Amino acid sequence: MIYMDNAATSWPKPLSVHRAVLEYMENIGANPGRSGHHKAIEAGNIVLHTRELIANFFSIDDPFRIIFTSNTTESLNLGIKGVLESGDHAITTSMEHNSVVRPLKHLESIGVETTIVKCDADGMLDPLHIEKAIKSNTKLIITTHASNVTGGIMPIADIGEIAKKHGIIYLVDAAQTAGIVPIDVNKYNIDMLAFPGHKSLLGPQGTGGLYISPDIEVSQLKEGGTGSMSQSICQPNFLPDRYESGTLNTPGIAGLGAGIEFLRQTEDIYRIDKMQKLEEYFIGCLSKIEGITLYGPKDIKNRIGVISINIGDRDSAEIANILDKKYNIATRGELHCSPLAHRTLGTLNRGTVRFSPGIFTTIFDIDACVKAIYDLAKQ
Amino acid sequence: MIYMDNAATSWPKPLSVHRAVLEYMENIGANPGRSGHHKAIEAGNIVLHTRELIANFFSIDDPFRIIFTSNTTESLNLGIKGVLESGDHAITTSMEHNSVVRPLKHLESIGVETTIVKCDADGMLDPLHIEKAIKSNTKLIITTHASNVTGGIMPIADIGEIAKKHGIIYLVDAAQTAGIVPIDVNKYNIDMLAFPGHKSLLGPQGTGGLYISPDIEVSQLKEGGTGSMSQSICQPNFLPDRYESGTLNTPGIAGLGAGIEFLRQTEDIYRIDKMQKLEEYFIGCLSKIEGITLYGPKDIKNRIGVISINIGDRDSAEIANILDKKYNIATRGELHCSPLAHRTLGTLNRGTVRFSPGIFTTIFDIDACVKAIYDLAKQ
Repeated sequence: MIYMDNAATSWPKPLSVHRAVLEYMENIGANPGRSGHHKAIEAGNIVLHTRELIANFFSIDDPFRIIFTSNTTESLNLGIKGVLESGDHAITTSMEHNSVVRPLKHLESIGVETTIVKCDADGMLDPLHIEKAIKSNTKLIITTHASNVTGGIMPIADIGEIAKKHGIIYLVDAAQTAGIVPIDVNKYNIDMLAFPGHKSLLGPQGTGGLYISPDIEVSQLKEGGTGSMSQSICQPNFLPDRYESGTLNTPGIAGLGAGIEFLRQTEDIYRIDKMQKLEEYFIGCLSKIEGITLYGPKDIKNRIGVISINIGDRDSAEIANILDKKYNIATRGELHCSPLAHRTLGTLNRGTVRFSPGIFTTIFDIDACVKAIYDLAKQ
Repeated sequence: MIYMDNAATSWPKPLSVHRAVLEYMENIGANPGRSGHHKAIEAGNIVLHTRELIANFFSIDDPFRIIFTSNTTESLNLGIKGVLESGDHAITTSMEHNSVVRPLKHLESIGVETTIVKCDADGMLDPLHIEKAIKSNTKLIITTHASNVTGGIMPIADIGEIAKKHGIIYLVDAAQTAGIVPIDVNKYNIDMLAFPGHKSLLGPQGTGGLYISPDIEVSQLKEGGTGSMSQSICQPNFLPDRYESGTLNTPGIAGLGAGIEFLRQTEDIYRIDKMQKLEEYFIGCLSKIEGITLYGPKDIKNRIGVISINIGDRDSAEIANILDKKYNIATRGELHCSPLAHRTLGTLNRGTVRFSPGIFTTIFDIDACVKAIYDLAKQ
């Protein structure tokens, strides 16, 4: 199979990720941070090690400000609901995933106000439109780092500057970039960074995280046992315990650590360069095939990870299905859980066929995709 | 190592659990319910299969009423916060874990009222005390099925009857029983059942679930992408999608399915009988050692899974530490994230040394524990 669905979850994972999961399950197995026996301490050290790797990866000073979650959606819910209260105003864009839009929509019912800043027909954002949307009660700006529909990269450095200037919290959804595009939370003035463990950080599904800056106050989404302050019926207020109630996904976190270790063996610049070179080649080939509509920005420097197309006026689900059945190419058709983005691009009715390469994608895989698309476009 | 910390998480897991996790990661890997390619469909089928196994295990009619969560704590937060609103009254007991007590404590700040029904000095509950605590605004009763500090089994059938009679929602925390003690949600009038995947159901850490009866309305804790109704910015209101936003822990769920398959090969009656026989033997041996305080009910029929003791007036953490270092026995000392339970038992200051056997514990393991306790009690 040619796996071009890395925007949903990365596959394959490095073998070291499998080994780390299995090693934990077979030889450690205990619950971190609960009991004091040596296996529980080993489990705790694994969690700490992955936390430190993530901190290092995103230039975060304090590893304890990274909260493990089950996925980016939980991270975003925690970041959004932990900050916004009735009467607050939030700004987001018309290219966001439903993991941002649906929590905001829900919060409208308790009196939170939202402005959705429109992106252009390629899904690109003018950061000045964010600044223009700021009001006296604006508390939070949330943007994706790169669209899961077009791969278009958002100007997060500019938005971070604007947020900082106005004293507004900036939450970045790095679902499509963490592991490929270098992220420095301080350089970009990111107050909260939501990221998946199971996409380009190469960890197992069931992992994700949220970085919370020391400058902001965020309420927890859940309370419960934390293995700390066990004599108290109140949630501890220190990090990460405040936000990490209940047993963690320790095998997943062990695997995530191995995924990040794998990435550390390559330079940041190598990963984004490799992906963009592959995609440039892909787009170049597609431009020679008649009847292909490519969505998103044209300049390769402005995009990463996703090539969304349509072929003539054919149904995207049907094309994705033929790619799977006849060509053994795994893509995603229809809508990609981002209705606002599809409306922006004019694809709300038909969706797109999304090819999302990963770190193990080769130029031969791209050639096979191009060949299949060429066949289908000819029909 | 003699692992007597199964109340925190079970270990070892059956080899089939490791194999299921690895098989998923190596050969499937896709995101269930998102894309339509054959690997995504295989992933979806794995999730469905585990959902069906769980439904069958707890006599739940509709598998789609089982929500996958990351742990019991998330399940309990969802069940508690999804039901209680300002002005509502909830009843719970003095033997609950902080995963019940801390969310309730938090909800007090938004106007939810809580009554904590006192258990006796052995941690046992008279169900009539629950009935006496019912008020006109009582909306929810929450009790554990068995205490994580004493192993004392709560009279859930009686409480379920009372809840049904008064039209009150009953949420059972099965953290310590799911997989050992048979649970039938209909027979016991359980409206919500919160359970871990990683304890006696033998799945990996990072798994858990909540059953929600069709008769009740529960708000979701998180919104986001569900792979369904992708054209809408509103959360779908059908199950399980309403409560399962974001990528699931598919490798964990695959492993959980294998864990339950393993349990299905033994009769329900075998598991509870085996555990109670081991514990009866353990308690019998302990009764012959001078200076041992055993907590919880004396009748073996009223307890499961946990043997909590203290030795003379020695520190429980010190004893647990010696058991680990000198005898290679993994237990948990101090408090067990259940301060109310420790207050009930009179162990809030010193905690207890908790031995929690599992399905793979043998009588030889118990003998080794007894020998070590005997040595320590002699000193």
